[in-house]
Amino acid sequence: PLDEWLSPPFEPTVRGDDVFARGASDDKGQTWILVKAVEYLMKRDGRLPVNVKFLIEGEEESGGESIEGLLRERPPELASDAAVVCDSEMFAPGLPTICTGLRGIVYGELHVQGARQDLHSGVYGGAAPNPLMAIAEIVTALKNRDGHILIPGFYDSVAKPSPEEYEAWASLPFDEQAYLEKEVGSTCLTGEPGFTVFERTWARPTMEIHGIRGGFVGEGAKTVIPARAVAKISFRLVADQDPSRVLRQVQQAVEAATPAGVTAEFHLLHAAGPSLVDPANPFIRKAALAMEEVFGRKTVYMRSGGSIPIVGLFQDELRIPSVLMGFGLPDDNLHSPNEKFHLPNFALGLDSVIRYLERL
Amino acid sequence: PLDEWLSPPFEPTVRGDDVFARGASDDKGQTWILVKAVEYLMKRDGRLPVNVKFLIEGEEESGGESIEGLLRERPPELASDAAVVCDSEMFAPGLPTICTGLRGIVYGELHVQGARQDLHSGVYGGAAPNPLMAIAEIVTALKNRDGHILIPGFYDSVAKPSPEEYEAWASLPFDEQAYLEKEVGSTCLTGEPGFTVFERTWARPTMEIHGIRGGFVGEGAKTVIPARAVAKISFRLVADQDPSRVLRQVQQAVEAATPAGVTAEFHLLHAAGPSLVDPANPFIRKAALAMEEVFGRKTVYMRSGGSIPIVGLFQDELRIPSVLMGFGLPDDNLHSPNEKFHLPNFALGLDSVIRYLERL
Repeated sequence: PLDEWLSPPFEPTVRGDDVFARGASDDKGQTWILVKAVEYLMKRDGRLPVNVKFLIEGEEESGGESIEGLLRERPPELASDAAVVCDSEMFAPGLPTICTGLRGIVYGELHVQGARQDLHSGVYGGAAPNPLMAIAEIVTALKNRDGHILIPGFYDSVAKPSPEEYEAWASLPFDEQAYLEKEVGSTCLTGEPGFTVFERTWARPTMEIHGIRGGFVGEGAKTVIPARAVAKISFRLVADQDPSRVLRQVQQAVEAATPAGVTAEFHLLHAAGPSLVDPANPFIRKAALAMEEVFGRKTVYMRSGGSIPIVGLFQDELRIPSVLMGFGLPDDNLHSPNEKFHLPNFALGLDSVIRYLERL
Repeated sequence: PLDEWLSPPFEPTVRGDDVFARGASDDKGQTWILVKAVEYLMKRDGRLPVNVKFLIEGEEESGGESIEGLLRERPPELASDAAVVCDSEMFAPGLPTICTGLRGIVYGELHVQGARQDLHSGVYGGAAPNPLMAIAEIVTALKNRDGHILIPGFYDSVAKPSPEEYEAWASLPFDEQAYLEKEVGSTCLTGEPGFTVFERTWARPTMEIHGIRGGFVGEGAKTVIPARAVAKISFRLVADQDPSRVLRQVQQAVEAATPAGVTAEFHLLHAAGPSLVDPANPFIRKAALAMEEVFGRKTVYMRSGGSIPIVGLFQDELRIPSVLMGFGLPDDNLHSPNEKFHLPNFALGLDSVIRYLERL
């Protein structure tokens, strides 16, 4: 929605301490920190303290297939000890944050076919199958009202966070009531009973429906029983859930849950594995210390409920950990009108990356 | 879809024994039968055997509110002994048919509101409510997989067809396997166990979802949890179900079935009462005899699963029965490209209406 932008999205505009532009925070501004850090060290010392390779892609939001292909071919040039990815947020302004886990994803379409052609609900209602109702029946068979997923075997590889992670999360400044009121704005939070919000959004897998296509959704009343319908459904995965195994489990569960009169199939659109890094990893520890020096506060560890597929690939294909140092803020309006990057964070981030490279 | 018409829809074109045009069978051709029958008698005799009033509307497919308003005001001009409505089909070619029952309808929208704004399923999935999932949870709470509606009190006023109707239906030439394969084309028929197809489509109420709006249904994968979603849902009613009572029952059942974290409301779009006429009614008997003379076969009685709201209003407001003599054929492509009316049926229908008027 271009008209919601206060300044043109592709002409970076500084207002106050922020620069407003499409991708300012996610992820041009953050990528630029890495480039400028290396430039600074080269100018100052004429050399870098460690070998550095840049791997920059512009497709992350649309699948990222090119870089995945590159990585899977594993050219020797990619061999490294660790990766630095600046594509995450600080938990709160001024609070140096390292992300230690990302959820994976299995995103697909549930295709349901009923009658050969659309039917009139007056004439055929009562005898003909309804693919929209079938979708409702299938998805409620896959997940109950408590947010617990009923797919056999689905939770087998779900690991509990470590005691250190629980401790780190408990220390984060989090007000559940403010989160409900200001961020979500619903009558209450949902999800699996017995798990905290952090667990439910970072450390537990989920299933969500994103849209259901089929039939009539215009103004007024049309009495059609659609011949077919499609639901877009994603599963967020946590370590050690394997996307291809989950896909098979989902497909089998869909088959078992399909009501009489329709055929139903779950087709994969894309998948990515979850990833976890151990905060005790020396690269993470050094990054945390560098950030603590710059921000003057202890670095906190969080996970993200979202997915950055390249991190899973670094882990699985190159066997290297990713250091997710992020300098975005929760109110940066990622993917939205008036996306911004907080300029003081650019300076703090630059300093953090320089000190991190010097420590290695 | 204009390009599927073999001749322009608003230029009636005769091919073989059929005239092809939009509304040829539903309902211009059938209405014309009534006009021409009266014209014939006036020309032949200079007078009609009974008083005749024409009430013609062009809004039936889009709500028919004007004629409903007219009828509810009950101008004395509308007083009559019976109505003749030519807007139905013969059960099979050559088989004179009178429709003795129509289902009523309650058509509405289920509005569900979750979070204040659309949310990212990575960040909020696991804690935020999903209105699309809520719709699935609500509709599966309202109807089970057997097609049985679970709304308290919903079946209280559902009357069983009479023994005479069961007998009449049993005599209809009906091949369930051909119906499944040629008309519906699904893996099996659905609906309440223990009821025949005629009962399920003519004499039992139903609930159908016609479309679900909300979220993302374009190409590819967007990980949105929509803030709100709307499902279009209709209930077909049978005598003596009262639309306003059913609406209250549905609204209460929706309230009881609403999952945590969302608000849900069922808003009425339109409603019409079911209608039944007794085949023993003298107007029906005379119509049946007139048609038998013309077609040379015994008139059969069927019901229709659809709704013609004016028939319920004739019954409730004017206290008059409707004689539903129909001359359409099952393959007339109503509401579809290449709608046609079978010209021999025009002549047979004309003759039937003339003889009916003469008998009164």
